[in-house]
Amino acid sequence: METALLQDLRTKQPLVVTYANFVTPNFVANGLNAAGASPIMTQAAEEAEDLVRVAGAVVINLGTINRQHESLVTALCQAANANHVPLVLDPVAVGATDYRFEIASQLLATSKFQVIRGNVGEIAALAGVQWQSKGIDAGLGTAKPAEIAQACAKKYHCVTALSGKFDYIATDKQIVRLDNETPLLPMVVGSGDLLSSLIGAYLACTLDTFEAAQMGCATLACAGQRAANGQAANGNPPYSGGTFAPALLDELALMTPEQLKAQIRTGVI
Amino acid sequence: METALLQDLRTKQPLVVTYANFVTPNFVANGLNAAGASPIMTQAAEEAEDLVRVAGAVVINLGTINRQHESLVTALCQAANANHVPLVLDPVAVGATDYRFEIASQLLATSKFQVIRGNVGEIAALAGVQWQSKGIDAGLGTAKPAEIAQACAKKYHCVTALSGKFDYIATDKQIVRLDNETPLLPMVVGSGDLLSSLIGAYLACTLDTFEAAQMGCATLACAGQRAANGQAANGNPPYSGGTFAPALLDELALMTPEQLKAQIRTGVI
Amino acid sequence: METALLQDLRTKQPLVVTYANFVTPNFVANGLNAAGASPIMTQAAEEAEDLVRVAGAVVINLGTINRQHESLVTALCQAANANHVPLVLDPVAVGATDYRFEIASQLLATSKFQVIRGNVGEIAALAGVQWQSKGIDAGLGTAKPAEIAQACAKKYHCVTALSGKFDYIATDKQIVRLDNETPLLPMVVGSGDLLSSLIGAYLACTLDTFEAAQMGCATLACAGQRAANGQAANGNPPYSGGTFAPALLDELALMTPEQLKAQIRTGVI
Repeated sequence: METALLQDLRTKQPLVVTYANFVTPNFVANGLNAAGASPIMTQAAEEAEDLVRVAGAVVINLGTINRQHESLVTALCQAANANHVPLVLDPVAVGATDYRFEIASQLLATSKFQVIRGNVGEIAALAGVQWQSKGIDAGLGTAKPAEIAQACAKKYHCVTALSGKFDYIATDKQIVRLDNETPLLPMVVGSGDLLSSLIGAYLACTLDTFEAAQMGCATLACAGQRAANGQAANGNPPYSGGTFAPALLDELALMTPEQLKAQIRTGVI
Repeated sequence: METALLQDLRTKQPLVVTYANFVTPNFVANGLNAAGASPIMTQAAEEAEDLVRVAGAVVINLGTINRQHESLVTALCQAANANHVPLVLDPVAVGATDYRFEIASQLLATSKFQVIRGNVGEIAALAGVQWQSKGIDAGLGTAKPAEIAQACAKKYHCVTALSGKFDYIATDKQIVRLDNETPLLPMVVGSGDLLSSLIGAYLACTLDTFEAAQMGCATLACAGQRAANGQAANGNPPYSGGTFAPALLDELALMTPEQLKAQIRTGVI
Repeated sequence: METALLQDLRTKQPLVVTYANFVTPNFVANGLNAAGASPIMTQAAEEAEDLVRVAGAVVINLGTINRQHESLVTALCQAANANHVPLVLDPVAVGATDYRFEIASQLLATSKFQVIRGNVGEIAALAGVQWQSKGIDAGLGTAKPAEIAQACAKKYHCVTALSGKFDYIATDKQIVRLDNETPLLPMVVGSGDLLSSLIGAYLACTLDTFEAAQMGCATLACAGQRAANGQAANGNPPYSGGTFAPALLDELALMTPEQLKAQIRTGVI
């Protein structure tokens, strides 16, 4: 992986426009800020064009999408495509309700997304693979995550980042498995939302979409491992998203490209 | 108290659908997650039925209720009643504005709530007892909290959890006082909101509404005491919601049914 | 500076009504709470009058302003002016989009604001001074911050608090520079939003608007310095908004008027 992109991110400090859900915007904004990007959020379609024109990436999170915001989301996507700004979709709980699935399908049909990032239940729902989801959790199923990721990438002609115990980053032809697991990451509500926006930040730094998606996943997972290890070293066993979340933000700010390079573990699929 | 319900909660991991205010959704979601439940929030009436059908409980928080969301709240309440999913009302600052009082009254008149959870000022306002409130604070008055809680329970035919220095959990016939005070809990904005959602999580695990309300109060109060004691033991005097809030989330994740049983203190009324 | 106002704030516990953006309301509310004020937020124009009538101050933050909330913001501003409640404007990223600039200009033309608080890019945009902003960041320019602050104060006939590496608090005739820098404060998303609301809390405690704006800036900056020093003393180098943010809230709660008096550094302009 081109870990030097982390330095590029800090030098460029790209503006990442996130249409955020209302549950985790603070965590996403602080996470982007810690990594070196410049976060902004909006709820006004009137300013979509102004913001996207100077943005490095646009991220659409469907966590609390609603009728009133549909025109805003459409305006952001159209402005991103028109201005050749990379676009990321985070289809939160897309398998949980018909409404979310319809919105996600419509967005994917009318705009070009460079990356879709979700957990296995969300990616399975988009790919049309049988899976049992419940709310924002990953859920249960028999298909292999690698196959689900690749099916989604093929169906929507975009890089797919399926995050979980292992992260799978797939194009229609290639796939990489990332093994830097931290069991604590799923304990932090919004860690997936942050991951999607971090991928956006990297997309602002390279034309290689596959690389950007991998770097987003690697940066968050490795910062998570460092935060968990740091808490353990201090004699504080990390138990929940409580004290782990602020420690994670610190590690995002501290991490060097060299540390990241040494820490990344990829697996055989 | 049936503290084994804490284990049931972690085994069942019930989906708790919270109509949250926009100030504290992240804290509520992380608190539910830490305790073992699965949080989800929505701002779309279109998905109310889909979410509620698989939910263990629905919690309505009026902290930033507005005209645009009235149909969403109504849809959630009706779906909860229709699907026999327990329903909790958190009437934030209901005594502070006519608008909030009207909304709360309308909801209580048209839907069946299993539990109302509020501070003394909020419960007094609903019960029609004279009280001086200001914003989200408890305020001042001369009536006894136990009487206020019971008046509310009788008026609305539901369990009432009045939280504060002591927590009073009341039905029309029974009342329990919980004495596990932490002066730090009121310093965390959203601790009451989280309590209401925790009660929802317990309602998903037992048909005994009175028991579920007690267990929600006991779990949060005891986790709060443990967090305060933990900070004091580390030589860091706990002063505000700052470092206490993440420590509280950790304790919610760590607490065992046995610890909870040993820690609960109930008082004579 | 009249640091005894910090004690007045804690005694009076003024209700501060903030029209908050949806990214940082939790941090702002906890910060106000830690300092000793009583926060409340609303999204309903219907309750503006009820809330403002008992408020000590009203703060308007434009971070995620949108068409649906324009009537709410107007109702809050008109109620504040009608009830002689001090009014603060936080023009987040006002230079970044035409929509935000139009809203801010309209509000400033139709309501009387006691204080405007922003970073150098935001204040320059309002003052009509050439400046290169990007999103929520301060940006770059050649004009001097002191001159920009004073130009804004003159143009809108209100106290202007320009926060950054140094804070400049200006009227049309006077200006004070505050030198209590913490490089970590900009790492916390919402630290500026909190500052605006803290100024509101002080406005509720004195008729001296210039003094209230200074005290708000001094309180946040000095708490920030104490939090950074505290982390360094514990052997934890402060790196990002992660663990620094909760430490900052603790220091806001702990700080005494005497400590504040001893710590404040003002500079020559």
